[in-house]
Amino acid sequence: MSNTIKKLAVLGSTGSIGQQALDIIKDFPSKFRIVGLAGGNNTSLLAKQVSQFQPKLVYSPLKFDLPDTTKFLSMEDIVTHPDVDIAIIATSSKIGLAPTLAAIRSGKKIALANKEVLVMAGEIIMAEAKQHQAEILPIDSEHSAIWQCLHGEKGEVARLILTASGGPFYHLSPTQLAKVTPEEALQHPTWKMGRKVTIDSATLMNKGLETIEAHWLFSIPFNKIEITIHPQSIIHSLVEFADGSLKAQLSVPDMRFPIQYALSYPKRLANPRLPRIDLPQLNSLTFEKINYDMFPCLQLALDAGKKGGTYPTVLCAADEIAVELFLEHSIGFSEISEIIASTISLHQGTAKPTLDEILAADDWARNTAIKLTRKANVCLKQ
Amino acid sequence: MSNTIKKLAVLGSTGSIGQQALDIIKDFPSKFRIVGLAGGNNTSLLAKQVSQFQPKLVYSPLKFDLPDTTKFLSMEDIVTHPDVDIAIIATSSKIGLAPTLAAIRSGKKIALANKEVLVMAGEIIMAEAKQHQAEILPIDSEHSAIWQCLHGEKGEVARLILTASGGPFYHLSPTQLAKVTPEEALQHPTWKMGRKVTIDSATLMNKGLETIEAHWLFSIPFNKIEITIHPQSIIHSLVEFADGSLKAQLSVPDMRFPIQYALSYPKRLANPRLPRIDLPQLNSLTFEKINYDMFPCLQLALDAGKKGGTYPTVLCAADEIAVELFLEHSIGFSEISEIIASTISLHQGTAKPTLDEILAADDWARNTAIKLTRKANVCLKQ
Repeated sequence: MSNTIKKLAVLGSTGSIGQQALDIIKDFPSKFRIVGLAGGNNTSLLAKQVSQFQPKLVYSPLKFDLPDTTKFLSMEDIVTHPDVDIAIIATSSKIGLAPTLAAIRSGKKIALANKEVLVMAGEIIMAEAKQHQAEILPIDSEHSAIWQCLHGEKGEVARLILTASGGPFYHLSPTQLAKVTPEEALQHPTWKMGRKVTIDSATLMNKGLETIEAHWLFSIPFNKIEITIHPQSIIHSLVEFADGSLKAQLSVPDMRFPIQYALSYPKRLANPRLPRIDLPQLNSLTFEKINYDMFPCLQLALDAGKKGGTYPTVLCAADEIAVELFLEHSIGFSEISEIIASTISLHQGTAKPTLDEILAADDWARNTAIKLTRKANVCLKQ
Repeated sequence: MSNTIKKLAVLGSTGSIGQQALDIIKDFPSKFRIVGLAGGNNTSLLAKQVSQFQPKLVYSPLKFDLPDTTKFLSMEDIVTHPDVDIAIIATSSKIGLAPTLAAIRSGKKIALANKEVLVMAGEIIMAEAKQHQAEILPIDSEHSAIWQCLHGEKGEVARLILTASGGPFYHLSPTQLAKVTPEEALQHPTWKMGRKVTIDSATLMNKGLETIEAHWLFSIPFNKIEITIHPQSIIHSLVEFADGSLKAQLSVPDMRFPIQYALSYPKRLANPRLPRIDLPQLNSLTFEKINYDMFPCLQLALDAGKKGGTYPTVLCAADEIAVELFLEHSIGFSEISEIIASTISLHQGTAKPTLDEILAADDWARNTAIKLTRKANVCLKQ
């Protein structure tokens, strides 16, 4: 495949990562070709993308007029299509789970941005990927950094250090934190991302999900994964090897870097449109210890990850409900972690769950989180 | 060789790097065995090392009583001995040149700490290494960092960024700088090194020599090698790839890291004796633009490197004389660069020099630098 065009399917093409992936892909018409696109509810944007990239295969929840050479298919049928080399999974939440598994089972390469896929079903995904020799190319910036640092290394890993910007609220007091609004939480200091992941960054849930993702992607036990606050988001993560030497990957915080690396891997492509780092201009890269007490979502995620089974699924589902409720001003910022904690505390976990058990746990957690919130609101009004 | 003991010769075993190499080697008796040692004028230390490591082969300018199983040989005969796998060249100045070439011509691996070897004869060394498939494993911390960052990469390099601590005087005024003493210059803020390289760090000549070394080691043109001041000496250098992404290698500033990596390459060995980095404790890594005007030795080195031929040899030789004169209080700190500049300005360079022409240029430069200093001192006294 090295000298031929890589043929791509982009699931979630209308989301933040999906749009940035298309932005990279259009820079390299001789390297990448879009074979399939799958969008969400933004049908008008998906229609524009179809008109621009002329893919053969499209998935959309709402149908619209397609060019003659294009047809509608399910996401599973798109990613398993013989014309597809790499499936870019840029969907959100559990939507990406079934198509990712289907793509893996057809031996496709998976460029994975949808972190819930690994958080919910890491054990199944990694086992199937091994069995079908399907390569998983991480797109999350931290995992891309670790992947780049590990590349070519034969040495034993002493620890992974995931960096975290700390989000917009890292230095607030508990009283200030309780009062933050969704509008404030959506102003991320360094990264331009979708709404859900931006709120997850503000609660540090995102870093917890990334820790679970790193655990599965790189087969590293949780006790060898550390998190360090690095407000500038320039060092995207580090690997410490057995000899005590570390490698780090750096770039301007721009998701197009990890997207392009996943697509061009194992090569790198010159792209003058991507911004360059000027270290003296940056002047200083700083690091701080993480404050677990102020951001309980992080500890909840780490605990769920270590417990394994269906717990990470319940964590993800409850978080999704809680973040939605926060975004629509139904609950406060501090209640996000409370809803998740309460939901998890009611869960009877299943070890080594099947995909159906994972999806059932997801349903259960969503319903439970909603019920708990209603009950709490009723109590508050009494 | 992967599962067998690597058999080593250490040239310059009584110097700073040589001693640190032995310190690493004794940690891994099942991985490394000392076959040969070559020391300098510190005969008593060399005798102790011989007694401790029981090498078969020894070079010493002054003879002393050897164990029955050990014999004296020349450095060339030691490194070309069939029992030697890796020659650690930790000599200083031009002393390492002939043995390095001999080792290369016998197809040995060269763990190279003696930077003058590449500065003086980079073109010859690299051509011979290619012809004889002799691998060169860099031991300088910056080059080890770049080598580690390049490892496994297939991407085109956009630039190498060598970091420089700036030495002890980086923020002095020109008036203050003119008055610094050898004793002050020998107090390096981050690295424990030999006297010559410590003074070269204070003048930034060292960073110029390293730029020339990097140019040859990694076949990178000078316009793609940058220098950035990084006072903490934690990031040892960085590589920017064509996509704008960078990799960096980090460790506590301790030469045992690059020494151990060169010896264990391509593996890494767990070594609990080496200190670990704690990023939050470090708190901040800073970067500054380099000030060429304050440290003329750096520009002299870069110019000599770009001119090529015998100019880098003349630079090295004049610098050695000037540093010696400074250390014995015969000249001031600012005169180091003046002597080197005057010597270079009198040189008629030879392009693509032979080894003999390089050694002749070295002789000429030493004599010229001494004559120029005498003349200047006579003028000053008149």
